[in-house]
Amino acid sequence: MNNSRISDGALSKMIQTHPGQSWLSSEQFARAIETLNQCASVCTTCADACLAEEHVHELTHCIRLNLDCADICGTTAAVLARPNDPDMNVLRSLLQTCQAVCQSCGSECERHAQMHEHCRICADVCRQCAQLCNELSQSVTA
Amino acid sequence: MNNSRISDGALSKMIQTHPGQSWLSSEQFARAIETLNQCASVCTTCADACLAEEHVHELTHCIRLNLDCADICGTTAAVLARPNDPDMNVLRSLLQTCQAVCQSCGSECERHAQMHEHCRICADVCRQCAQLCNELSQSVTA
Amino acid sequence: MNNSRISDGALSKMIQTHPGQSWLSSEQFARAIETLNQCASVCTTCADACLAEEHVHELTHCIRLNLDCADICGTTAAVLARPNDPDMNVLRSLLQTCQAVCQSCGSECERHAQMHEHCRICADVCRQCAQLCNELSQSVTA
Amino acid sequence: MNNSRISDGALSKMIQTHPGQSWLSSEQFARAIETLNQCASVCTTCADACLAEEHVHELTHCIRLNLDCADICGTTAAVLARPNDPDMNVLRSLLQTCQAVCQSCGSECERHAQMHEHCRICADVCRQCAQLCNELSQSVTA
Repeated sequence: MNNSRISDGALSKMIQTHPGQSWLSSEQFARAIETLNQCASVCTTCADACLAEEHVHELTHCIRLNLDCADICGTTAAVLARPNDPDMNVLRSLLQTCQAVCQSCGSECERHAQMHEHCRICADVCRQCAQLCNELSQSVTA
Repeated sequence: MNNSRISDGALSKMIQTHPGQSWLSSEQFARAIETLNQCASVCTTCADACLAEEHVHELTHCIRLNLDCADICGTTAAVLARPNDPDMNVLRSLLQTCQAVCQSCGSECERHAQMHEHCRICADVCRQCAQLCNELSQSVTA
Repeated sequence: MNNSRISDGALSKMIQTHPGQSWLSSEQFARAIETLNQCASVCTTCADACLAEEHVHELTHCIRLNLDCADICGTTAAVLARPNDPDMNVLRSLLQTCQAVCQSCGSECERHAQMHEHCRICADVCRQCAQLCNELSQSVTA
Repeated sequence: MNNSRISDGALSKMIQTHPGQSWLSSEQFARAIETLNQCASVCTTCADACLAEEHVHELTHCIRLNLDCADICGTTAAVLARPNDPDMNVLRSLLQTCQAVCQSCGSECERHAQMHEHCRICADVCRQCAQLCNELSQSVTA
């Protein structure tokens, strides 16, 4: 494989060219979507890493929350990636749900952070994503 | 909203801490997953932008391919985000499917690139993602 | 293609054999997941049908809500399909979000129900799915 | 919760009202989408049931394939739920990928079928879904 980089800023430029109005700047949209995508992928990988651990039976609740968190972050990213005229009640409720699952998954991962470095990283990423969702849901309310 | 950045390199570090074996380096995995996530989100936004265009009736096939491409890229990212012991036949077939939909969507977007900047960006991103899938599927075969 | 039927009741039997405890009967789980899957697919098809209508420019908000509703119903089905020890706060919040998007999408489809039979059917399915989510979210609260 | 049933045949009626042309009858479309949705949900539940088993460490490969199969079946259902003018090359390739993952997941589940009833049911459902994908992919070729 060559080492070509992904298109830096393509998502932000994309949103800038969108003909519709939006409630966030294109940079804020892009950052939010990228944070949610990252959290979804990190949770998917954390579940897979947990499955490969010798003591997987101690990690089953973590795996379950990883899967929920990955699904909900992915869907939240998809809804945010439609900047045009969202239903603000749906968006706020979805962001609150996403914050809740990121907090729940992050707390569970934190319990295993000293044993498993992947859980420590996942806990960090979930915490940041929860904070983002909190900020966004408050800006929807305003 | 504050301006905190997403965790640079979190996905790559995540994969590095995975206890299982893998067929790619952690950087290659992270780049691939990030490219696929980016393509999924860009296609989702391109569909939404097309819907907001005055001449949406000329863009309906583009929208449809955007939606297919977003779904397939998202699933390919999820399967790659499980580095542990994948079924290589499934993975190769999925990467070929993803390459096919990225090419198809990129070609259709290209047709509208002069009229719509979002289609031009989307065409670029799809082309890069198709190339990545091609490289990856060949490395699976090898 | 032959005319073999899908496995009637496979999902309900599946959940019956699950070793974990759960807060609903296996029939209730199966009905809920099937209703959510149906709503997701009906919304996806309604968006595709709207794109094929001559007056697609009058249906763009409907299409957008169809896409949101499909994504959120699909994720809610996935979280419910993990009966073992869910985070009840996340589940309740997700069900409320799903109810909100089903109501929003159903109302928008209703506006086009006299012109487009697919919107009339989609409005019905969304309304039933909203009611299911409401019932489920209240049983989570209890 | 009341006992209202999901709307029987809503998806088939939905597709019947679609203004576009299609390569399958509305009944065939509905059956295919419902089979894929069922397989996705059954695989999601099988993974969750495996996680709740005492000997989860013997089921980790099964869980991983369940997750891949659920994702790919869900995406295949979404692409099929857009009957209007699909890219036939993409569709055929996706159906072949879906057949491959259903076979792989079904074979792994079969290995645990005597110990775990949920794996026996999942193996059955995967086998039927693989057969459906095979039939559909051949009808795309023709």
